[in-house]
Amino acid sequence: MSSRTLFFVTSNPGKLAEAKAILSASGVNLESKNVEITEIQGTIEEITRDKAKRAAEQIGGPVIVEDTCLCFDALKGLPGPYVKHFLKEIGTRGLTNMLAAYDDKTAQAVCTFAYCEPGSEPILFEGRTKGKVVRARGEGSFGWDPIFEYEGSTYAEMDSYQKNKISHRFKALQKLTAWLEEKHG
Amino acid sequence: MSSRTLFFVTSNPGKLAEAKAILSASGVNLESKNVEITEIQGTIEEITRDKAKRAAEQIGGPVIVEDTCLCFDALKGLPGPYVKHFLKEIGTRGLTNMLAAYDDKTAQAVCTFAYCEPGSEPILFEGRTKGKVVRARGEGSFGWDPIFEYEGSTYAEMDSYQKNKISHRFKALQKLTAWLEEKHG
Repeated sequence: MSSRTLFFVTSNPGKLAEAKAILSASGVNLESKNVEITEIQGTIEEITRDKAKRAAEQIGGPVIVEDTCLCFDALKGLPGPYVKHFLKEIGTRGLTNMLAAYDDKTAQAVCTFAYCEPGSEPILFEGRTKGKVVRARGEGSFGWDPIFEYEGSTYAEMDSYQKNKISHRFKALQKLTAWLEEKHG
Repeated sequence: MSSRTLFFVTSNPGKLAEAKAILSASGVNLESKNVEITEIQGTIEEITRDKAKRAAEQIGGPVIVEDTCLCFDALKGLPGPYVKHFLKEIGTRGLTNMLAAYDDKTAQAVCTFAYCEPGSEPILFEGRTKGKVVRARGEGSFGWDPIFEYEGSTYAEMDSYQKNKISHRFKALQKLTAWLEEKHG
């Protein structure tokens, strides 16, 4: 394995493609590993750190992992890291409904990447985008993209060029890229 | 350690007192262990099994653990095992608000105990009580007791005698007690 090859532990082809495209610019060859890592309950940081450590141990080499949260301000940051379970069970409509009692529809999309080598502490890279939760708009079917609005457009209404300029995932990947470039000189 | 002594891994004195009282009738001496066990994300069963296995390994003897869920029917069972995080962040009012968009306020209170010996598979005992979510009523300050109504009264409006006849925790402990009595003859 070359020192510029990194394993991305994910079972989500969309996330892999996005990360691969962004990291290839800095000469990093990203390969996916679909390893089953059970996520813990906790804060965004605790969940990502734990996942990164166990992934690095299982694979026996440097890995990156990712966790995505949707944090409703009116719900003090929840559903946060549990949003995937809500999305699976009640869909985007159900997520929007969770805010029916509140005028405040603001939310933060948070993406946290972690880089970890076996036996070392993970290093975290967080991207955060502030927006609001709306009734679904747009053709995108990726997660909760249709209900997250940023400056008048939902993620699902943006093309990937537009979205990548402001998305929580892009911001996190930019930080990771900058760090990898510095590390590898 | 006598064969009738069992460790209950919990940091909640209320849960310990309740379990101790119920299990003492069957000659089981319950002692608490406040061991930090990180909970995983998953189904009720997955979370309880995982916690029981790791607690038994850490303690090196038979343990019981418990997990409590509040499952809103309109939200397809959520917040479920994540209810503790919602309760902590947004309180009972916030939990009630999560159902503002729905006429269906029905919910299920689910308590799952697991008995586990090191190296063995956990055995699960589930208690489930069907009720509905209401605006807080009653003096009880135990978790979400004030917003869970069963046949006209919230848990918080019931005395412990009333509550113990129908509560999800009592039903689960009854099953555990019956199993322990059979096991110990």
